[in-house]
Amino acid sequence: MITYKTLAKALNMTEIRARRLLKSKSLRKTSYREFEYLIFKRDIGPYPEGTAVIFHNDYEPKVVPGYPQISRILVLRVAVPQHFRDQVIVEEKLNGYNVRVVSYAGKLLALTRGGYICPYTTHRIERIFRSKGIEDLEGYVVFGETVGLENPYTRYRYPECEDFCFYVIDVMKDGTYLPIDSKKKFCEDNNLECVRELAKVNKNDVDKIWEIVKVMESEKREGIVLKDPYNRVPPLKYTTSITNIGDIAEGMKYIFDEGRTYLFPRILREVFKSFEEEPNEELLKERIKMLGEAILLEPLNAVKKVNIGEAIAEEFVLKFYSENVIDEFLSYMQKQGILLNIKNMERENDEIIIWFMKPKRTNLELRNIMSSGLSPLD
Amino acid sequence: MITYKTLAKALNMTEIRARRLLKSKSLRKTSYREFEYLIFKRDIGPYPEGTAVIFHNDYEPKVVPGYPQISRILVLRVAVPQHFRDQVIVEEKLNGYNVRVVSYAGKLLALTRGGYICPYTTHRIERIFRSKGIEDLEGYVVFGETVGLENPYTRYRYPECEDFCFYVIDVMKDGTYLPIDSKKKFCEDNNLECVRELAKVNKNDVDKIWEIVKVMESEKREGIVLKDPYNRVPPLKYTTSITNIGDIAEGMKYIFDEGRTYLFPRILREVFKSFEEEPNEELLKERIKMLGEAILLEPLNAVKKVNIGEAIAEEFVLKFYSENVIDEFLSYMQKQGILLNIKNMERENDEIIIWFMKPKRTNLELRNIMSSGLSPLD
Repeated sequence: MITYKTLAKALNMTEIRARRLLKSKSLRKTSYREFEYLIFKRDIGPYPEGTAVIFHNDYEPKVVPGYPQISRILVLRVAVPQHFRDQVIVEEKLNGYNVRVVSYAGKLLALTRGGYICPYTTHRIERIFRSKGIEDLEGYVVFGETVGLENPYTRYRYPECEDFCFYVIDVMKDGTYLPIDSKKKFCEDNNLECVRELAKVNKNDVDKIWEIVKVMESEKREGIVLKDPYNRVPPLKYTTSITNIGDIAEGMKYIFDEGRTYLFPRILREVFKSFEEEPNEELLKERIKMLGEAILLEPLNAVKKVNIGEAIAEEFVLKFYSENVIDEFLSYMQKQGILLNIKNMERENDEIIIWFMKPKRTNLELRNIMSSGLSPLD
Repeated sequence: MITYKTLAKALNMTEIRARRLLKSKSLRKTSYREFEYLIFKRDIGPYPEGTAVIFHNDYEPKVVPGYPQISRILVLRVAVPQHFRDQVIVEEKLNGYNVRVVSYAGKLLALTRGGYICPYTTHRIERIFRSKGIEDLEGYVVFGETVGLENPYTRYRYPECEDFCFYVIDVMKDGTYLPIDSKKKFCEDNNLECVRELAKVNKNDVDKIWEIVKVMESEKREGIVLKDPYNRVPPLKYTTSITNIGDIAEGMKYIFDEGRTYLFPRILREVFKSFEEEPNEELLKERIKMLGEAILLEPLNAVKKVNIGEAIAEEFVLKFYSENVIDEFLSYMQKQGILLNIKNMERENDEIIIWFMKPKRTNLELRNIMSSGLSPLD
C-alpha cells in the first residue's frame, strides 16, 4: 500500500518529506492490475520526471527512474568537440516511443516516457521477451525504443520492422547506466536487439558524423544519438531534415492539437541544420518546398476534409492476444482523457486486430471556423 | 491628481470599486509631461483594454476608450453573409499602427493601441493637425492608422506615404462611433484623410469582395476592413497572402522575439485563404515557396549574421522637430523596457533625423546557440 512511510523508505528520504510529496501535485497516483504506483510529474531530487514508484502488497516497492531528456544539438561542429571527452559512439536514433521494461512481483512491466504502465505495450513486450526466454530482468531496467506501426503513440515504417519491435537504448543496474560495451553484452546475452551502433569516432571528427547524418537522411531515418562510451557526459541527439520537416507535416495535420508547440522548435532545428550543412541551391529549394508544403498543404487538406463532412482523426491498428488487455488498454487511455473509437475488429487465430480512431481537437476547431468563418485567434 | 474619488467620478463607478481597481494590477499608472494617466491592461466594464484615463490638475479627467480588437475573417463566403445586416462598407486596412488622437487641457495627445501617450507620435501628429488648422478636437476621439517609414513601431512603404501619415479609421463622439458617412464628413470638414473606402456592397456579394481582395493582393496592400454603415454590428477584417506571409517573414527575422506567437495564427489565415481562394497550381506553388522561404531563409540569414559577429537589430529612422521630444521619446521607450541605441544623427534646417537600433532578444539567443551548439528548447 502507498503510505508516506513506504514511500520514504523506497526513495530513501525523510518521512516528513515523503508526506509532503504525497500531498503535492508533483506526484500522480494510479494503478495497473494488482499494482498501485506513483508517477513523478517533475524532477524530484535525483529522480527525473517520469520516474515511477510501483507498490505491491507482497513486495518491497520498486523505483523505476525516468529516462532523462536528451539535449539536442543544433550545430554539430560546435557542440560535439566541446561536449565530449575523447571518443564518441554514434548510435541510430529511432522514431518510436521510449519504453522502460522492468520485472517486479513476477511480472514484466513496460512504462512509457511519462511513467505510466501501458497495458498494450506491456502485453506486446511481454510476448517478445518471453519468446526470447526472458522471464525476469532482476535488478535491471531496460530502456528502449518501441517502433513500427502497431502502437498507439508513434508510428513510423521501418524496413526492418513493420509491426512492433523493441530496441534497447540503455540498460541500468543499481541506478547506474551500463557502459556501452556492457550494454551490448547484456543485449547479446539476453538475445535482445540493441539500437544500431553506426560508428565510434573521435570527437573532433565531425566530418565523419556529418557523413553518417547524410546516410541517415538518404535512408529517411530519424537521426543519431551521440554517447560517451562510459557515460562520463550525457548523450546528445541530432535529427535529419526528413524528420524535422516530416514532423512538422505530421503535426500540421492536426494543427490545433499540435501545430503550435510543434512548429517552432522544429523550424529552429532545420534552420541551424541548413546553416551548418550549407546545402546547394537545388537541395535548399527542395527543403523550402517540403517545408512550405508541410505547413500549408497538410492543414489545407484537413480543412477540405472537414468541409465535406469527414472527421479529422488519428487512425491506428493494434494487435492483441487477449480480450482482457483490450479492456485494460481502453480504460487506461480513458483515464488519460482519450476516448478511442473502435472502427473495425478482426480475429485471426489467436490474434485480435483492432482499428482505432482517436478523435482530434482540430476536428471541432476547424468545424467551428467553417461555420462562423471567423478566427478563434487574433 | 489620481485618487479613487476622481477615478470613480471619471468612470462613473462606485468609490469602493474605483479604490479596488486602483490597487489592482488591471491598471497601470504612468505620466507624460504635466499629465498623469491610467492605462487599462484588460477590459473593465464597458471599457476595452487600452482605455486611458488622463488627469491634469486644472481639468476634469478625460477618458479615452480603447479601440476594440477587430475580429478576423477566415472564410469570407461564410462570415460576411452571416455577420452583416444588409450593406457592407469595404475599407482598406492599412499596415501601420493604431493611434487615438484627442485634445485635452489645450494639447493634442496621441495614444498607441496599448493606451500609452507616445511622445514621438504626438509630436508628429500635432504638426500634421496644426498644418490643417486643427487646434482642438473638442469631445471627439479620432481613431486612425499611422503609416509610413518614420515611426518606431510598424514600417511599411506605401506609394502615397513614405514618411509619416495619419489616416482616420473611426471617429467617436460622446462614447459612440459616428456612422461611416458622418465620419467621412468629419474628415472633409477637418481636412483630415480618411482610410480609403473601396466599395459598398450587398452582404451576399462576396464575389465583389474577393475581387477587391485580389486587387489589394496585386498592389501588395494589407487587406480590408468590412463595416456596417451604421455600426449596428462590429467590423471584421481580412488580410492578403502578401501580408500573411510577409508578416511571417518579418517575424522570423527575429525568431526568438516574435517567431513563436507570430507564426501560428498567420499560418491559419493563409490555410483558410487558400481553401476559399482555390489558387491554381502555379499560384499555390508560388505561395508555398514564399512561405517556405519566409520560415527557413529569414532566420537562416539571422544565424549567418550572428555567425560573422553582426548584430540582429531592428533599425528605423525618426524625424524630430525638437530636441526635447528626443529625450521624452527615449525615456518613454526605456520605461517600457526598450533601450534604443542611436546609430546616427543628422540636422537639416529645423529637422533632426535620427537612426535608431533596437536590439533584439534573438541576438543573444542565437549567439548562445552558436557558442554551445545546443538547443535551448527541446
